Amino acid sequence: MSCLSCRPTSLIKYLALLLPLISPLSVSAFEYLQPLPSRAPEPADNPSSAAKIGLGRSLFFDTELLGVNSKISCNSCHNLAQGGDDNRALSPGQNGRSTQRSAPSLWNIGFQTVLYWDGRTTSLEQQTLDHLRNPVISAWPNIGAMVSHLAAQPNYQQHFAATFNTGRTENIPAPDEVTGARVAQAMSSFLRSLLATRSPFDRYLAGDAGAISSSAKRGIEAFNESGCLACHFGANFAGPAPGPALKMGDGFYELFPNNLGSDYEHRYHLATDLGRYAFTGDPGERYMWRVPPLRGVAVTAPYFHNGAVASLEEAIRVMGKTQFGKDLNKETVRDIAAFLNSLTGEMLAVSATPR
Amino acid sequence: MSCLSCRPTSLIKYLALLLPLISPLSVSAFEYLQPLPSRAPEPADNPSSAAKIGLGRSLFFDTELLGVNSKISCNSCHNLAQGGDDNRALSPGQNGRSTQRSAPSLWNIGFQTVLYWDGRTTSLEQQTLDHLRNPVISAWPNIGAMVSHLAAQPNYQQHFAATFNTGRTENIPAPDEVTGARVAQAMSSFLRSLLATRSPFDRYLAGDAGAISSSAKRGIEAFNESGCLACHFGANFAGPAPGPALKMGDGFYELFPNNLGSDYEHRYHLATDLGRYAFTGDPGERYMWRVPPLRGVAVTAPYFHNGAVASLEEAIRVMGKTQFGKDLNKETVRDIAAFLNSLTGEMLAVSATPR
Repeated sequence: MSCLSCRPTSLIKYLALLLPLISPLSVSAFEYLQPLPSRAPEPADNPSSAAKIGLGRSLFFDTELLGVNSKISCNSCHNLAQGGDDNRALSPGQNGRSTQRSAPSLWNIGFQTVLYWDGRTTSLEQQTLDHLRNPVISAWPNIGAMVSHLAAQPNYQQHFAATFNTGRTENIPAPDEVTGARVAQAMSSFLRSLLATRSPFDRYLAGDAGAISSSAKRGIEAFNESGCLACHFGANFAGPAPGPALKMGDGFYELFPNNLGSDYEHRYHLATDLGRYAFTGDPGERYMWRVPPLRGVAVTAPYFHNGAVASLEEAIRVMGKTQFGKDLNKETVRDIAAFLNSLTGEMLAVSATPR
Repeated sequence: MSCLSCRPTSLIKYLALLLPLISPLSVSAFEYLQPLPSRAPEPADNPSSAAKIGLGRSLFFDTELLGVNSKISCNSCHNLAQGGDDNRALSPGQNGRSTQRSAPSLWNIGFQTVLYWDGRTTSLEQQTLDHLRNPVISAWPNIGAMVSHLAAQPNYQQHFAATFNTGRTENIPAPDEVTGARVAQAMSSFLRSLLATRSPFDRYLAGDAGAISSSAKRGIEAFNESGCLACHFGANFAGPAPGPALKMGDGFYELFPNNLGSDYEHRYHLATDLGRYAFTGDPGERYMWRVPPLRGVAVTAPYFHNGAVASLEEAIRVMGKTQFGKDLNKETVRDIAAFLNSLTGEMLAVSATPR
């Protein structure tokens, strides 16, 4: 995960580059502003390969992955052509059921250090299996039934064997090349490949002074001065990478809402869901949430875990009030929104078959 | 977990004791026959205490633990007064739903090294949380809702605080003493206290030659000679303790049914459920099951993961055929049944309040 850690040396370059352009911006802010790395970190036991990414892509778009009569694929809720989410508050699942929290974008998901709104896992592979075992998402009675369905298809047999069996000499029957763990590995490699690069902000960091507007430049400062950058920093603007032992505060904001009882909270029902507490039952984790990433945020409305807030500017106002007790003025909101808009990278067309 | 490992020194004692009584019994058999240890192993981060056991007992019998209008408590499916299970094939859960596999006995569960029929976890604490998150078992939408319900009750506030807060000086509000992790810890300590001791077999091992019948003594030999002891050995007759990395074969039988296609298999639908494969989707784990414990087995009919076999003698015949391709004769079945009957310990009356 080293590529997610602060890289003071290279940041000094950006610092030197930017200081003349937007002054006065505190030095500390720059330590928190990072360009999108060129590659997402990978676990040692699942190095990416073109074959895995291709297989994961096929699974991602397969409408039968989640059930033979499923109306939905992974792409239904995480629509890669629409910002990586479905622009709904909650998503329709299997058998008329609804998800309980808003589907996040999958673009740049490989840079998330904790997953789910409550940060319940740090592993994309585990997250994939959790999704496939969730009866709201998958219509299969269990992982084995899903694997059996895939393994019965000669094209998948061939695809899995070619992807995972390189160099092996054992005579494993082709259907047995399909396993739950390999589904998770291929899917995760595909997810790690979803990089939305060349955002205006990244081009600006790389030296193109005109890549973002003056309003966006003021927005960077306002984002820092308002306190947002204290949590939303790093490659994905979602906080630091957790250390060997994941602790609260590493990759999580303390509280959302931080100031309970605001009008916004009531209007948008922001305190109905108790966050991580719902999963763990630890009272110290009431209203504790993963810091959501901000890259691509402009195209992934509606906002917050319940998707209750429709516009980016309103979401900024809500955050100012609930987190800092501040009524952000119109100009500040507009500038921060301009900055956040500059974080939308190029989301290349992705389809079930390779381009 | 060291108390589960083979203890050659002390076993030599039993060997010396028993050899004159039941001859010829191969020496190797004795290495696999162990008395019930006096205490179940505990994880380092959850040492048992009388207070935890008492709290876990209250939770276990609380009909509101699984939902404010729940008709069931833990004791409904794992009835401690009826052998630790409910003597049903499958169990009724919440909202008219049914479990998918037969509820096991909880007596001596602390000696199980892997839990669930498919051995998906090695931790009683984790197993408790998994149960409380399972919508078939728990009517709460999540763990947090359950904890909030417990935390609203002054008697639980007091009980949790007294159990877990000893020696702490921080001023934690009493409701916040209730946490999901502590529910799991108390429940697990209670489960580890469920020892069914002084079985005829244990009294026999301890030197009471008349504690078991001649038929049971022949049954020990037949159990060994038929091959049963190869998997059903150790403190709980459920195989070895897994090492640091849980591997297939450590705590699992290879296959059940081992010989596919028998009449028994068809009659009792024994190969419908693919076992551990259903959970992992690993074709190498098709029909892989945890070795079930045999202590108390005589009072926990019906048998197998689907509860399809009503009598112990029929279960013995099924195992002879499906695992070894053997048609066990009437005398052998009767002798093995007599031995298995000798494994039923004293299941002391347990109720919601301490005796």
